[in-house]
Amino acid sequence: MTSLARTERPGQDTADLSPSVAARHACRNGMASSTAGVANGFVQGNLAILPEKLASAFHRFCQLNPKPCPIIGISDVGDPRIPALGIDLDIRTDLPRYRVWRDGEVVEEPTDIMAHWRDDLVAFVIGCSFSFEEALLAEGLSIRHIERKVRVPMYRTNIACSPAGPFAGPMVVSMRPFKPADAIRAVQITTRFPAVHGAPVHLGHPHAIGIADIDKPDYGDPVPVEADEIPVFWACGVTPQSVIQAAKLPFAITHAPGLMLVTDLMNKQLAVL
Amino acid sequence: MTSLARTERPGQDTADLSPSVAARHACRNGMASSTAGVANGFVQGNLAILPEKLASAFHRFCQLNPKPCPIIGISDVGDPRIPALGIDLDIRTDLPRYRVWRDGEVVEEPTDIMAHWRDDLVAFVIGCSFSFEEALLAEGLSIRHIERKVRVPMYRTNIACSPAGPFAGPMVVSMRPFKPADAIRAVQITTRFPAVHGAPVHLGHPHAIGIADIDKPDYGDPVPVEADEIPVFWACGVTPQSVIQAAKLPFAITHAPGLMLVTDLMNKQLAVL
Repeated sequence: MTSLARTERPGQDTADLSPSVAARHACRNGMASSTAGVANGFVQGNLAILPEKLASAFHRFCQLNPKPCPIIGISDVGDPRIPALGIDLDIRTDLPRYRVWRDGEVVEEPTDIMAHWRDDLVAFVIGCSFSFEEALLAEGLSIRHIERKVRVPMYRTNIACSPAGPFAGPMVVSMRPFKPADAIRAVQITTRFPAVHGAPVHLGHPHAIGIADIDKPDYGDPVPVEADEIPVFWACGVTPQSVIQAAKLPFAITHAPGLMLVTDLMNKQLAVL
Repeated sequence: MTSLARTERPGQDTADLSPSVAARHACRNGMASSTAGVANGFVQGNLAILPEKLASAFHRFCQLNPKPCPIIGISDVGDPRIPALGIDLDIRTDLPRYRVWRDGEVVEEPTDIMAHWRDDLVAFVIGCSFSFEEALLAEGLSIRHIERKVRVPMYRTNIACSPAGPFAGPMVVSMRPFKPADAIRAVQITTRFPAVHGAPVHLGHPHAIGIADIDKPDYGDPVPVEADEIPVFWACGVTPQSVIQAAKLPFAITHAPGLMLVTDLMNKQLAVL
């Protein structure tokens, strides 16, 4: 990892830092805004932090549902570091904003979780669609919600995740409309990225996966699907947050939506082809 | 090629022959029926034979339009052999039935073309969808026209091929309906087979590629597309035959539809992944 040599030294100018390290340091220093467009080229991840007692069931849940929950990093118990994602990474401070959950409710949205960290916590970092969107854009495809500067539309589906322990619920999907030839290209491109949701899970026919009204997403913002376009649906990293909420756990921590962990991995490193 | 050692010797029992060699020998001995289901696992090809004067333009046409016209074999000028497709292969006798074209009309449908062969002819063998259909079936997908024991429905589209010399015209596509998740899988599977049409060129919205009525194919037989299915369209090897017909060449030879050349290549050898 080229960023290794660039890890902050006392007195080091932040201009010398790799963009991903600089983004994490900005978070440590109070940056609390969306990470969309931050440190282009670097993998961003969804965060889920759970007590050890629940972590093994959650790990199994992710294993059973790799399309919505592709794990790209995991901490040791009680250890806030995940060196594979960034040698200096501290999961307690390096995201812009967190959500602290108690009994299925968000009770706090702090900018660090130093006060909440415990020796029994395990942190999971889960792949996010920003990575495959970069690949789609690089191949010349247009992504509607990016063009319109809104959040991607997301929907709860009737596709049941495989349950594990208290974790169960429907898959959440994100939707991007494409002309048919681009939809085919998008299947090919995203197939290369199994670590960040991979190929679509559905296309066309929203009703077939339980979406009653494509104009009314359950999360994010609606975007138009033109008459000559096909809605293409990918498994979404909101799924684990949704099942954590539904499980009404005594305690959990996640990232705040859109305010992700920036890692030192490059998106292009995740391509299997 | 394992079939090399199995090439016919005088007095050899045909039971010893590889299925592909046996199929070609059956053609030499008068077999004149469809090659669908013959020599499973072996690549079958469309045939186009043209005088040398026109062959270079046709070769360029195929190069410019690799999805409908993927060349898998080509003969030397005046040479009826294509050793790369079968060491003993004789293109003049080894197909069940041929079409002899004069000025854009079929004038004869002989079971061999010994009487028509000339020293200036070049034979092109072009990949066919039988190969990727085998891969789709092997992965557990159902193919509607095979289930129904009819020919695949094919349509002339408004997608113009890139012209070369006298060769020009619309792409012909074949259509297979799938449920959305299977359509995505079919894109992935057929992407592995660029030598036999590769990934689909279109899905959904037949009108967008100039298909007025999905129930009225221009070639082959109609099959139903159910409400929860997506029609998926692949570039079709009927395209070169269609442009040869439209070019009203003084002389050309093709295979008769569905009565293909059986080669010694294995379908699985064509997978690039």
